[in-house]
Amino acid sequence: MKISELGEFGLIERIRRQLPPPHSGVVRGVGDDTAVLRSPQGGYLLATCDVQVAGRHFLLGKAAPDQIGRKALAVNLSDIAAMGGTPTYALVSLGLPADLDVEFVDALYRGLNAEAARFGVSIVGGNLSSAEQLFVDVTLLGEVEPEHLLLRSNAKPDDVVMVTGDLGAAAVGLDLLQAERAPNLLPAMREAVLQAALTPTPRVKEGQIIARSGLASAMIDISDGLAADLGHICDESRVSVRVFAEPLPIANSTVEAAVAVGRDPLDPALHGGEDYELLVTAPRANAKALIALVQSQTGTPLTIIGDIIPPNEARTFIRGNGRMIPLHARGWNHFR
Amino acid sequence: MKISELGEFGLIERIRRQLPPPHSGVVRGVGDDTAVLRSPQGGYLLATCDVQVAGRHFLLGKAAPDQIGRKALAVNLSDIAAMGGTPTYALVSLGLPADLDVEFVDALYRGLNAEAARFGVSIVGGNLSSAEQLFVDVTLLGEVEPEHLLLRSNAKPDDVVMVTGDLGAAAVGLDLLQAERAPNLLPAMREAVLQAALTPTPRVKEGQIIARSGLASAMIDISDGLAADLGHICDESRVSVRVFAEPLPIANSTVEAAVAVGRDPLDPALHGGEDYELLVTAPRANAKALIALVQSQTGTPLTIIGDIIPPNEARTFIRGNGRMIPLHARGWNHFR
Repeated sequence: MKISELGEFGLIERIRRQLPPPHSGVVRGVGDDTAVLRSPQGGYLLATCDVQVAGRHFLLGKAAPDQIGRKALAVNLSDIAAMGGTPTYALVSLGLPADLDVEFVDALYRGLNAEAARFGVSIVGGNLSSAEQLFVDVTLLGEVEPEHLLLRSNAKPDDVVMVTGDLGAAAVGLDLLQAERAPNLLPAMREAVLQAALTPTPRVKEGQIIARSGLASAMIDISDGLAADLGHICDESRVSVRVFAEPLPIANSTVEAAVAVGRDPLDPALHGGEDYELLVTAPRANAKALIALVQSQTGTPLTIIGDIIPPNEARTFIRGNGRMIPLHARGWNHFR
Repeated sequence: MKISELGEFGLIERIRRQLPPPHSGVVRGVGDDTAVLRSPQGGYLLATCDVQVAGRHFLLGKAAPDQIGRKALAVNLSDIAAMGGTPTYALVSLGLPADLDVEFVDALYRGLNAEAARFGVSIVGGNLSSAEQLFVDVTLLGEVEPEHLLLRSNAKPDDVVMVTGDLGAAAVGLDLLQAERAPNLLPAMREAVLQAALTPTPRVKEGQIIARSGLASAMIDISDGLAADLGHICDESRVSVRVFAEPLPIANSTVEAAVAVGRDPLDPALHGGEDYELLVTAPRANAKALIALVQSQTGTPLTIIGDIIPPNEARTFIRGNGRMIPLHARGWNHFR
């Protein structure tokens, strides 16, 4: 069987089943945003890695090298954010075509260094290899107090589902980057969705506030798309979910840009991926306090978009007219 | 300027100069075998990453997938060994062509899991991406007590230079793999050098014993080649070195295989790279005790091959006939 037939998540599940049981020091191995490891002296160490490959995760000539560097770190920062953690150290593994300009690498590192400085991260190592296809593989470490760790696996029926910021902008930005002719769009709107696609802002502070509040039950970052990442929470928590179209936070610029490229804005919001927003579940009674806390400390809105339901009910999306349709994961699959 | 003109080590040095000063928690950042990080509660955390790219680090069709997996972890284990550390957790980032067979990935993970089990490592995370060129990027964490850490930067004039095991086998093994016609060679000899090339054995236990003995002054693993890695010790310790041809440990199988492919055995021993032996310096008075200790506890020979000299003297290689020639690094450069 080819990998393309099994798909990314099928392959991850297959690898996971073959892994031997981990040490006693492993609080959480494969199956969450980051690994969670007990430090010998107490405290939890977080570790994650995510690669950006040319032509897959970024388009040479469309993304500037400093943007590629920023994003390569940002996507990892978002995983640490999803655990409520504080990022600390990064290792950077570069695969570089031998005929690439050294100045490209300089600019890539300018982006990496700027993003690292912004979030208090030190780049402490890495390696270089020649490769036909440029790639940037970042490993990021972080830490979290055991009592504040938020996993994917603790959502409960009747919890509400909330999301930080807004959805779908990055996916529409990617549509614009790939469009042969620039659609008719106000420059500010164009800029907003392009920025979401090229230099996403990881919600590190928001993640820490949510985790430390003790008000939430589960958290994940949206990299594969809202529907797919909600699916991960449901799978790991053994629950189901109901999402409402009406409250979904979609910025005006995303709506305008989606329409300009001929796309229903709900589609990128549900399935676009690469939002790097946080998806949070919390007991219904805690929602108001959590929304007020995040808003007041970061200015970032947290919006209720649905609720967790028992596992025997279907995962459902409820449109504005009340029509219920199945909520299928249709996010990014690298091997499709 | 192109990367190929600057070369791997020029580019590393250029990146290193552009990095901002690290946190106070960084004991050692870029510039040793692994990063060394202070744990919040005491103790040192080690972190390293090393990628294997198809066509660069392994040849598809020549290396079996389980061998590729084993080696991808082994080269990282060797870096932890060079710090005297204990490996703990690994993250595995795979770049995979979509038309690759799933069974290839199964076998690759069989190799990774076997090597992990052998050295007490848990694989706790990673990620998958599609890529045109297969790559396996492993990040490995480890730990070491602060009092036992052995850096590259503490070699002193009049220290002796020692090496574990023997040299040049992996490079000659690679010659055999690349040869269009198999040279005339006894199967056992062929097997020995192929095994060195395909499934090197990291010297984890030896590294721990050497570091904990308190008898050594500096340590590095030989990945770039004896001359190049000695150069790294000299650069970081601000010393020079003299190496003698006569005592260089070269296995009979390596000599025979080198001759069979028309190569002076000294050449792979000095410059071949990928030996994954440990290169150790120690005060002359400690050498005998250290050699006896490593031999008795692991069975691995430790051989004196030269000495550290003041930095104003030339790095020199002294041939069997007493002729002195400059010892130039001529190891692997990924962008040449």
